[in-house]
Parts: sequence; C-alpha cells; structure tokens
Amino acid sequence: MRDVYIIGAGMTKFGRAGDWTLIDVLEYAAAQALKDADLKDDIESVFVANMGAGLLNHLSGVGSAMVDRLCLWPATAETVENGPASGGSAVKVGTMAVGSGAVDTALVIGGEVMRSVTGWEATDFVATLSHPEAEYIYGVTLPSLAGMFARLYMDKYGITPEHLAMVAIKNHQNAMKNPNAHIQQTVSMEGLLHRPEAVVNNPYVAEPLRMFDCCPVSDGAAAVILCTKEIAEKSGKPMVRVAGFGQATDTHAVHERKDPTELTAVRLAAERAFGMAGRKPADVDVAELHDAFTILEIAESEEAGFFDKGTGHIALENGETRPDGRLPINVSGGLKARGHPVGATGVAQVVEIAWQLAGKAGERQLDDPRVGFTCNFGGFGNNVLCFVFEREG
Amino acid sequence: MRDVYIIGAGMTKFGRAGDWTLIDVLEYAAAQALKDADLKDDIESVFVANMGAGLLNHLSGVGSAMVDRLCLWPATAETVENGPASGGSAVKVGTMAVGSGAVDTALVIGGEVMRSVTGWEATDFVATLSHPEAEYIYGVTLPSLAGMFARLYMDKYGITPEHLAMVAIKNHQNAMKNPNAHIQQTVSMEGLLHRPEAVVNNPYVAEPLRMFDCCPVSDGAAAVILCTKEIAEKSGKPMVRVAGFGQATDTHAVHERKDPTELTAVRLAAERAFGMAGRKPADVDVAELHDAFTILEIAESEEAGFFDKGTGHIALENGETRPDGRLPINVSGGLKARGHPVGATGVAQVVEIAWQLAGKAGERQLDDPRVGFTCNFGGFGNNVLCFVFEREG
Repeated sequence: MRDVYIIGAGMTKFGRAGDWTLIDVLEYAAAQALKDADLKDDIESVFVANMGAGLLNHLSGVGSAMVDRLCLWPATAETVENGPASGGSAVKVGTMAVGSGAVDTALVIGGEVMRSVTGWEATDFVATLSHPEAEYIYGVTLPSLAGMFARLYMDKYGITPEHLAMVAIKNHQNAMKNPNAHIQQTVSMEGLLHRPEAVVNNPYVAEPLRMFDCCPVSDGAAAVILCTKEIAEKSGKPMVRVAGFGQATDTHAVHERKDPTELTAVRLAAERAFGMAGRKPADVDVAELHDAFTILEIAESEEAGFFDKGTGHIALENGETRPDGRLPINVSGGLKARGHPVGATGVAQVVEIAWQLAGKAGERQLDDPRVGFTCNFGGFGNNVLCFVFEREG
Repeated sequence: MRDVYIIGAGMTKFGRAGDWTLIDVLEYAAAQALKDADLKDDIESVFVANMGAGLLNHLSGVGSAMVDRLCLWPATAETVENGPASGGSAVKVGTMAVGSGAVDTALVIGGEVMRSVTGWEATDFVATLSHPEAEYIYGVTLPSLAGMFARLYMDKYGITPEHLAMVAIKNHQNAMKNPNAHIQQTVSMEGLLHRPEAVVNNPYVAEPLRMFDCCPVSDGAAAVILCTKEIAEKSGKPMVRVAGFGQATDTHAVHERKDPTELTAVRLAAERAFGMAGRKPADVDVAELHDAFTILEIAESEEAGFFDKGTGHIALENGETRPDGRLPINVSGGLKARGHPVGATGVAQVVEIAWQLAGKAGERQLDDPRVGFTCNFGGFGNNVLCFVFEREG
C-alpha cells in the first residue's frame, strides 16, 4: 500500500446542532478541513461516516449529498456505517482508497445529529447495534452492557468508583482547553461522589456507572483530508502519516465471550495497527481512547498495550495519563467531555492526533509529540479500529 | 493496485423474504458464495451493502452482525451505503481492500428487506436519497423523476411507448430462465399497451411510465468473494478478474443539470472503468444495466458507449441486446424482472457477470463471454458505478 498522509483537519464544536441539519454539520467540518489543507488538487473521493441518517434523520445517500453540497462533482462518494466506530471505518476505507492508488485524495467526514430526538430515543438508537435477538429485544442498552462490564472489571482488578471518577475529572479538565468540546465544566471527586447531593447530581445510570461516567449525547462533525506523499510534500505542511491501522471483530452478543472482561477486539486491533506501523505501545506520545464510559478508558489503555492488564487504574491514579504524564490520554476531553456524536467520534479522534502531531492543538498542545494512537470502539467491543500516526521530519 | 479476482458468488431468490430478516437473507447469500468459493483461506474482511437497515429494519452495525452470524471473527466489517448503488460501492471498497494489500480476501454481501413496509413507505424510503430541500419536500419520488426524464428523452430521440415496452418484454423473457428472479411472467406488446384492458392492467405510475416500466419492490441478497491472484489460482476455478471500476457523481437535484437528458455520471463512470481495464465498449460480451425504469436501460446503453446517443432504442428494436444479439443486456432479467432489493442490486449484477464469465449461468448461459460490464445507478444518476470484468485463460 502507498503511504497516506493527513494534510487537513477540521471539526464543528460538539454539542447542540440547533437548526443545523446533518448535512450542515458535515459541511462545516469539511469546509474547515479543506481550508486547513489549502489543497491545490481536486478532492477525488468522499467518505462519510454516519450511523443514524436513516434511523434519526430520515436521510440516505449522505455521501452523494456532501459531494453536491461541497460542489465536488464528479468525486466518488460513499457512506460508511459501523456503529460508534463508523468514523474509524471511514478513515480506514479512505486510507485504502488512497493507499491502493485508486485515488490521490480523500475527504473523510464523520458526523451525527442525534439531539433532535429525545433521550430514550437516542439510547434506543444506539442500542440498534446490539444483537437483535439476544440483546436488543430484552431491553439491553449500551449503558447496561457497560454497567455489567464495569462491575466485573472493578471486582476483578480492585477498581473503585473513585478511579472511574478520576477519568471523568481528568477528561473534563482537558476539555476546558478544547473550544470544540461539548462540555466545558470541571468536576471534582467531592462533587461526583462524596457530597451528600452527589446521589442527586450524579445519579446511577447503570450501576456502578453514574451519569458522569457516561458520555453525553452530542451533535457534531469532524473531517480529515488524506492524500499521497507527493501531494503532502508539495503542501509544505507538517508530514503526518497514517502509519498503521488495525481492526478486529468479536462476538455480537457480549455474553458469548469466554471472558467478558477481555476486550479481545481492542487487543487485536491495536496489535495489528502497531504491527503495520512497525511501532510498539511504548513509542506512543499521545492517545485518544474511546471513553464512552469511564471504565472503557481504563480497560482500553490496558488492552492497547500501554499498561499491564489490571494496572490501568493505577497508572491513571499516578497521573501517567494526564497531559503532563508519561502517556497523555484524551487530551481533547475524550468522548466523556468533548462529546460523542457517534458517526463523528472516530474522525474527531484522528483530528485531535493530527493537530497534536502538527503542533496545531492550541492551548492543549503537548510538547512535540511524534507518534499518536487512536482507538474507536464499535458495538460493545464487537468491532474496533485502532490507528498509529507519525509525524515525519 | 494488485489484481483482484472473484472466486465465489451466490444469491437468494429475489422476491418476498417472508419471515426472513435482513440478517437472514444476507446470511443465505453469503453462505452460497462461501460454498461456491470453497475457500481454504480465512475471510479477512466483510463489506455489507445496504440502504435501509436504519430506515426500514431498525438496525445498525449490520456488517458486524454478519461477521457474527457467519462466525468469521475477527474479520473486519463495515456497512457501505450509497442508495441503490450501495452494491456497486461495496464491491468497489472490497476491491480496494484487496487491491491495496490490506487484506487478501473480502466477502461483499448486498441485501435489502423492503417488502416489510407498505408500497408508499417503500417509495418514500427510496425518495430519502433525493435532495432534501429541493426535491423530497415537494413530494418528488424516484418514479416521478424517471417519468420526467422519460418524457424529455422520448421527445428528443423519437422513442415510443412501444420501445419502453420492448425493454420489459425482453427482460421478463430473460428472467424466465433465471430461477432467482422475482418475476417469472412473460409480457407482450399487446397485453402491455394495445389491448383495451391495458389501461387497467398496466396503468400509469408517472406518465409516460406505466407499471411495467418500473421495477418491483423486492427483498433479497447477493454476495461475491474477492481475493488475490494467488488465492484465485490456488482455487483452480475460472479466473474472473475485476479489470476496472469507475465511479462519478452529478448534481443532487436533477433540475440543476445543464441538460437533464444527459446521464453524465454514467458516461464518466463507464469511461473510467474502461480506462482502468484498458478496454472499450465494443469489447464487452455481456452487460447488466440498472433498468429500475425501462427508459434507463436505453439511456445507459448509450451513455456507457455501447450505442450512439439517441440510438439505443433502435438497437433494442433490432434485437441487438437480446441474449442472441450482438450485446446481450440484462440476461438475468435485470432490475425489471429479477427484482430490485436496493442494497443487493449492484452485487447481484456482479454475481450475474461472474456466473456468465465462469460458465455457471445455467439455462441462460451465453456462448463463452470473456468481458462483462455492469452499471449500478444511484440516486437519480447522482452517484454511478461501472465495472469491467474479464475471464482470463
């Protein structure tokens, strides 16, 4: 496969789209990425990551609609759906499109407008990715799966509610420096767990997970522009390469897994991404993990190989994953505080890493990171994509 | 890009899925293709083509669900949506996946279960791909766009209602030899147009298009297995190569096109596919065109380069597109009679060509075709994919 580079990135503020339609938010993110890339060559292909156009917005053919909205005819276009990992999937497909030589440029846009429906409809919408006969019809939702996972994981490794809260506290703090974050509010251990009013302000959603252990329901979009080495070099911009990607699936129904505390698909996807990149976890300077629930950041940080199994919460407690730590995780605020417009998330993770590696992350810029990593978690771990990115030169 | 081959193909009978869910029909088609391929290597990736999982079936993550149903973990999986051209898009993405070197094998499954809703809901469902603000809200549907197109096209080139009926007559006749066709019923010029009861039996849907000018609403699925040259050679099966693919978009709203009788995206997509294959239209021995409406078979046969603009209906009248003609078109029965489960169609076209080139088309097998062509028409011509396939050896 030819080398593939990121030469443009952009996103909307995550949160409430208001009067903006799905097409509007996708357009805004794409326009930001196009402006960032300042591309002289044509965009030859468009890949839109989205999960709910049909279920929430009564739309189809959104890929073609974006070509039209951006006046990119006759660029090719597709919509790629893979639940909350749609974004990672679209970045992968775009990378293969450029990598294969089929096209020299690809615009990948991920977006979702999901606050147009009520809270329970949004929860039902996301639950459509669970097993239709073995989970969905019994009322299993993503928070309930995460709750059961958290209970087993906490019991097994001695993780406390305080550890979960540490993820939220860190990521809310990080989001304060991200103007695109949905939630810009710091939270404290006292407020989340120890003050008497915590039972009201931070109620259980799916015990042991409380409200602040869960990501918000967000609208928004993010976009990246992928291209060949030649085009990237011509641009004179920092050379950020898609060094490796890996993907793996697991059983659809969570109860069919031998050990439900193992996120096998995360481990495999990360191994494959590192293998393709010729890198190891210790090489990574900055990572964006899929913290749709606080427990997932801890578990993924272990399965991806950054910490031994069962020690992620210790590393967190020691501050190793803070922006000033050994491996900053979710400097953007993560899904927890940047927000989680499902189709956008996988692309937004790549946008954050592209910005960090290119030195464009503003107030939250880390000190010269060279290797970045993303983990986009679909279903309840039944389809996961990991990427390794490197800045050259 | 590495060469990519088709070593397995399968499909359900198109028509009514009855109690079968979308997952069931996709599984059946995939199982047929896997049996046909008799593959010793693992399936490394799955691409599902589907348009209505969200809008009609309250499902998401169908790609991951198929990996699970077929026990193909940890194979990668995505759903690819591009309206009625979803099938062509998924075959393209699968070809890029194998062609790029990312994987050695890809299972591409296209399917739709759309008879679970009423007729007007199915029409509304397909109309979700029209322009949301410029077409959909004014009640424009695909049959109405096709009706307006047909009127202009017929006026411009002197095409009569009899010419349209000839497409239906030929394709219904062809479908009599296709056990997977939805409609197995011959029709005659007399019955369609000239008997007094034709006004009742073949009423206008969108004048000048009558009921028998429109494809039926069908359920069904089709699947192909793509692989590297090495794996194809090892299989000892006929070597059917994806010689070229091309895709192009056009304006979303049809009225924005300079000349609405030009299907620019078809012309461009065909040119690109022939260019990649190093072939020309005259080399093609068998073609599957997207006859969702009879007029489209005529127009596409011209835009693809098989006949001069404005002469497709003459070639049809002269029998050149019959199975015994110079260029057999829609030997399978086409969308008109094989049926049109939207997500399945682009894959079913490839299945028919793969079978014809491999000598597996049963009663409707043509005499040793070597080069095949497909045209999968999305939106009302705003996203079109064409492929050229060749049998080697």
